[in-house]
Amino acid sequence: MASRVQIAKSILYFMFICVLWQSASSMQYVGPNLNYSYPQTKYFIQKMDHFNPTIDSTYEQRYLISQEYWNKDGGPIFFYTGNEGDITLFVNNTGFIWDIAPQFGAMVVFAEHRYYGKSKPFPDLSPNPDNVHKFGQFTVEQALADYARLITYLKETIDGAKYSHVIAFGGSYGGMLAAWIRQKYPHIVTGSLAASAPVRYFPGLVGCDEYNELVTQDFENVPGGRECTVNIRNSWKTIESVAKQPDGFETLTKVFHLCKSLKDVSSLEDWLSNAWSSLAMVNYPYPTNFLNPLPAWPIQETCKPLSKPKLQGIELLNQVREAAGVFYNYSGQSDCFSLDTEASPGLSAGLWYYQTCTEMVMPFCADGFNDMFKPANWTIEDFTKECQKKFGTTPRPVWPILQFGGRDWSQESNIIFSNGKLDPWSVGGILESQNERILILSIANAAHHLDLRHKNDLDPKSVQIARHQEMETIANWLRQ
Amino acid sequence: MASRVQIAKSILYFMFICVLWQSASSMQYVGPNLNYSYPQTKYFIQKMDHFNPTIDSTYEQRYLISQEYWNKDGGPIFFYTGNEGDITLFVNNTGFIWDIAPQFGAMVVFAEHRYYGKSKPFPDLSPNPDNVHKFGQFTVEQALADYARLITYLKETIDGAKYSHVIAFGGSYGGMLAAWIRQKYPHIVTGSLAASAPVRYFPGLVGCDEYNELVTQDFENVPGGRECTVNIRNSWKTIESVAKQPDGFETLTKVFHLCKSLKDVSSLEDWLSNAWSSLAMVNYPYPTNFLNPLPAWPIQETCKPLSKPKLQGIELLNQVREAAGVFYNYSGQSDCFSLDTEASPGLSAGLWYYQTCTEMVMPFCADGFNDMFKPANWTIEDFTKECQKKFGTTPRPVWPILQFGGRDWSQESNIIFSNGKLDPWSVGGILESQNERILILSIANAAHHLDLRHKNDLDPKSVQIARHQEMETIANWLRQ
Repeated sequence: MASRVQIAKSILYFMFICVLWQSASSMQYVGPNLNYSYPQTKYFIQKMDHFNPTIDSTYEQRYLISQEYWNKDGGPIFFYTGNEGDITLFVNNTGFIWDIAPQFGAMVVFAEHRYYGKSKPFPDLSPNPDNVHKFGQFTVEQALADYARLITYLKETIDGAKYSHVIAFGGSYGGMLAAWIRQKYPHIVTGSLAASAPVRYFPGLVGCDEYNELVTQDFENVPGGRECTVNIRNSWKTIESVAKQPDGFETLTKVFHLCKSLKDVSSLEDWLSNAWSSLAMVNYPYPTNFLNPLPAWPIQETCKPLSKPKLQGIELLNQVREAAGVFYNYSGQSDCFSLDTEASPGLSAGLWYYQTCTEMVMPFCADGFNDMFKPANWTIEDFTKECQKKFGTTPRPVWPILQFGGRDWSQESNIIFSNGKLDPWSVGGILESQNERILILSIANAAHHLDLRHKNDLDPKSVQIARHQEMETIANWLRQ
Repeated sequence: MASRVQIAKSILYFMFICVLWQSASSMQYVGPNLNYSYPQTKYFIQKMDHFNPTIDSTYEQRYLISQEYWNKDGGPIFFYTGNEGDITLFVNNTGFIWDIAPQFGAMVVFAEHRYYGKSKPFPDLSPNPDNVHKFGQFTVEQALADYARLITYLKETIDGAKYSHVIAFGGSYGGMLAAWIRQKYPHIVTGSLAASAPVRYFPGLVGCDEYNELVTQDFENVPGGRECTVNIRNSWKTIESVAKQPDGFETLTKVFHLCKSLKDVSSLEDWLSNAWSSLAMVNYPYPTNFLNPLPAWPIQETCKPLSKPKLQGIELLNQVREAAGVFYNYSGQSDCFSLDTEASPGLSAGLWYYQTCTEMVMPFCADGFNDMFKPANWTIEDFTKECQKKFGTTPRPVWPILQFGGRDWSQESNIIFSNGKLDPWSVGGILESQNERILILSIANAAHHLDLRHKNDLDPKSVQIARHQEMETIANWLRQ
């Protein structure tokens, strides 16, 4: 059961972390160019089902639009293909678009993904086996068609936009959508920047252990990292062995400063795994603010309490708690820890979980040998059972590869696939050259779509160069 | 009412004529290379709904497969994207594929389009407002996904096929599907020959009168054609004026040798319009066999009885009957004419009609001035009313353009768009250069996808050259 829970939770990291990061950095790290007026919020009557002509119902899709920098005489439309969350989070946290919009004379549009944020077809949206019929249109294909239809509408109705080129932008799942909309609607989208887009993170195209291996490498590569990862690797057995003692749960509750008595050791393990995985994604070179604030290069900070070789027993667990505190309590404001690491309001981890239980089937496992995590298997059979129980859906692991091509992008054009070398999601990204019309950027010292963030004085040279290449490439597309 | 009927019928020409032609030429004009063994018939368990993950039902899709010429060591798969009819008709009537398969060492697959032939998800398949829910999955997108899934399955399960290139072939609506599958699934289909594919025959991208204008030109360009078209143009008023006489319907029944008493003058007009339109599509240089046989260059033959200038009254109608007899009774076997021009068994004109009432919205009209047809308007409003009454569906004229790009193929690659200059469907084809990776072939003296037929000694030089270019281009794709 423990391993299944761990796997179940791990598939949420993607969304969860994106979201934590998004909701947070908006508050604090406003770059020098964030002088734009907040865009206008609008709603578009969207077809509920683009692919079933016998269904006429609609829903209201939210989008935010700014014409502040737009050159009506031929300027492009920069269109963010919203991911698994409230679109305002992405508006506030994709600084790169706002940084470069003025020099491109671009109209900026952020479109919200159906079923998230305020673009919900139904008021009560917690998917379960009893309401599964309400989620039949909650798919990538419908979302892409939404965006294509919205773009077409904007071009038709906004004066001067009729012949505007459209450049799609997205990070993480939004990056997958940006790549896929160029693939499926090349007559509508001229080119796409797909940042940290794990478009081949599907069964058979990625080892389920690769993600956790890269997280582990990220930890190993900081000062004291070798000891840090050994200590984390050893912590799982120590936790299990303490838990087995007569007063084990009580001890763990005390050692980990938990607000509520521990009832399930796997919830503690998941909470720790979540911290380590999350840190690898958001291991940025300057302080960022999540639900709780983080220091610059947070993995380095996390490993400090764990850099003493071969910690053992309660001392090990005390140091693990200190390390986890970097992620969960860097501000020092909490007296105790809650294991319910809920995402920010307006987001539902359950919705992304549903997507992984239908189309976006993403395998995660660990062996505790090549990585520092508690060993956990992943099989499609177990995952299918889990999804059927939770949502009444059967995952379709082959479908996204068939539909979107997995690792083969040789036939496409005008897409930038950028990946940070520190980002564990990069293991599912497109890292190898496809043809001369696809730009592959592998960015040293960069975590999850760092290139999409506002420029910052502490940015490594590598991401500055990458952003420059992205701008040059987009400019070339617009000249074509 | 008359004009609405005429329009309603005109949208059926596409399928109807394709079908007549298909079912017929199989019987007679076997080229010298038709020495292939008949392919194996198989069925594939296909997903009923690729785009709704909450629907798990399936149906059995028929396909025919031949490995007779296949070079297992790297040979390609030639995949016919079945159109609106029984797939065996296309197997027997796309001689070009069979002619060239040996030299390419190609596996040959003909896949049947869902809802047609023996690939019916439901036994009773006459769409109407009461059973509209059964037709929600009857769309182009589902058909394309069927083909993509079937190709993937074949490559995975047939020894030696794993790395085979796939070339899609199709004519008419099948040609649209061939172009679109390359557009949407470039990682699955290496290239496509889209023969006589009217991929931009949608409202706003083509004048509704262009089709009938080209039919009229085809008639004008034969010996005596000028007089022929004037006589046909005058025939409509003569018919109407005779019909208004007290014994008018009786007179028309006699003059036109009708088997049953005429009850509705529009049925006679549609029957005649259908003959003229059909002849323009299948105006081939050698005899072909439809439901009834046709001579070589049948328009020329049709215009013979109408080449006397300014025929009038009953004499005009007698000559019109003789001319229509070329299409409906060239063999001379019928003593009288039935106005029920039903398609061959296994095909349902109603199914294609349904497709035009959802996605494949194709406008047809006539002004009787620039063309020789009875004037008939086409408006989306009238057509919508007609569809709602007939099927309970609302046509989506904008959708196919949004989904498939209409006239813009500048971003695509590896597609051959071939069109016969005599073919009235060419007005909705891609005739202008898009980029260096799209081959445009405009074939003089050729009617509807003549290039897809078996080679024939009477083929004009133009189609021989076109087929050669097609083969060269396909060979180039396979070398890439």
